[in-house]
Amino acid sequence: MTFEQWTRSVLERVEAALEHYLPAETTEPAKLHEAMRYAVLGGGKRVRPLLCHAAGELTGARAECLDAAAAALEMIHVYSLVHDDMPCMDDDALRRGKPTVHVKYDEATALLVGDALQSQAFVSLTSDVLAPAQQAALVRELALASGSIGMCGGQAIDLASVGHTLTRAQLETMHRMKTGALLRAAVRMGALAGEAPDANAMRSLDAYSAAVGLAFQVVDDILDVTTDSATLGKTAGKDAKDGKPTYVSIIGLDASRSLAAQLRSDAHAALAPFGARAQRLAELADLVVNRVS
Amino acid sequence: MTFEQWTRSVLERVEAALEHYLPAETTEPAKLHEAMRYAVLGGGKRVRPLLCHAAGELTGARAECLDAAAAALEMIHVYSLVHDDMPCMDDDALRRGKPTVHVKYDEATALLVGDALQSQAFVSLTSDVLAPAQQAALVRELALASGSIGMCGGQAIDLASVGHTLTRAQLETMHRMKTGALLRAAVRMGALAGEAPDANAMRSLDAYSAAVGLAFQVVDDILDVTTDSATLGKTAGKDAKDGKPTYVSIIGLDASRSLAAQLRSDAHAALAPFGARAQRLAELADLVVNRVS
Repeated sequence: MTFEQWTRSVLERVEAALEHYLPAETTEPAKLHEAMRYAVLGGGKRVRPLLCHAAGELTGARAECLDAAAAALEMIHVYSLVHDDMPCMDDDALRRGKPTVHVKYDEATALLVGDALQSQAFVSLTSDVLAPAQQAALVRELALASGSIGMCGGQAIDLASVGHTLTRAQLETMHRMKTGALLRAAVRMGALAGEAPDANAMRSLDAYSAAVGLAFQVVDDILDVTTDSATLGKTAGKDAKDGKPTYVSIIGLDASRSLAAQLRSDAHAALAPFGARAQRLAELADLVVNRVS
Repeated sequence: MTFEQWTRSVLERVEAALEHYLPAETTEPAKLHEAMRYAVLGGGKRVRPLLCHAAGELTGARAECLDAAAAALEMIHVYSLVHDDMPCMDDDALRRGKPTVHVKYDEATALLVGDALQSQAFVSLTSDVLAPAQQAALVRELALASGSIGMCGGQAIDLASVGHTLTRAQLETMHRMKTGALLRAAVRMGALAGEAPDANAMRSLDAYSAAVGLAFQVVDDILDVTTDSATLGKTAGKDAKDGKPTYVSIIGLDASRSLAAQLRSDAHAALAPFGARAQRLAELADLVVNRVS
């Protein structure tokens, strides 16, 4: 199977899993469920679900176990986008090529959509396709990655940094929490959905995730200044306009491109112990670095 | 032990558990953690933790298991208050006798505090004081109760009802989701933290919770029109001012008082199968109905 075929088949599974794990639009309160589905379905690169499925190949995880984990990861990611786009945060009108939730509906609905998607992620992880001990382990990974020492904490540091000069180390800490933690959780959860991996394997996967997570952000910063809004599906040039520190603003465009290339080879190196079974993870590192949107 | 002594000892445990399960104020990002602790610590009636501990007495749950569940329940409750108080929702400045989080800090911080408290609740439930299967069961209870078919869903219906006339049945559905679901989860989680209760016991507990949950709301509506803000620790008369339907507005003050008394005896009747072991749950039903704030 080529990487494109693999990606397409995983993305189909992921859409079906999100359909399955989100409450139906006909379930009351219908407007809330409609808005949750508007936010989640039919858009997005699904990077976290792809990482989760790719990592699951290392430990023989069953596809339906990975579906539950992937759906939960994407729900957490989308909830964070919905809340980040709100007027009191980034105040953005465009996401995944569509009006943001508070623009399409209203602020109160956006707040509740995010809140309810976070809960629904944990509902999904306690699906009985996973053994109870796996459910508990995956919940812990996801909750730690999304909370105050992970994604939310990174967001808080990001907000506090607007208009300030960050060192490269501070910028890295912020991104390691804001986006890195959830990407790392995607890889770990995929692996944990199969035969329990040993501590060495988990360390290698964490090294891979650290490189991919940082590469993801560096590339985001590059695209923010080199690509238009239509291609990105979100407002381009926003970070610079908002006075947010980025890799491009701190180390420049050329050094950012070299850094992304270096991080890709770091990611590949971290996968060496797994041999050919890590092919999809390696290809995903390439995808993250080579993407154009 | 008198009920007052029992309550005091449980409340001490609950404060200590919240201290324990919340990240320290010195942990980065410090401002976010300070704000989370501001929202959670030193205030509130802790009704859900009390119900959780009382239900745990029926199934011999260990106190440290109940602490984890109680802390998680209170974090979810507080996150919902922090978000509900935001300008795009109820826009309230006073909570538990203190400025609300968005007033004391800012809106973006309030948003993140709520988001991170929800994650932290699930972190707490995956504490290893609980067996993995219990962790998974408690996570599922809490996630379902707080999400779109529980608390968030009730909040969505509440928002949609402003300025509309609701039937008593519609009002009841709204409250069953908005506050009832989490109170019910508190009772169920307390019971599930011990020796697995049988289906009959769970049904009796659900009947108890349904009565207590509704009584809680009826009394809230009564207090909203009969008590001042200083006693309540939140803005009195707000529901009427906001055009929100309440029991008092739909069935009147006297009928609301009779209904609260009736629900208290329903709650007591539901506890009959448990005999003396349900003493604390019975006393809590009385507390909910007789409270003055």
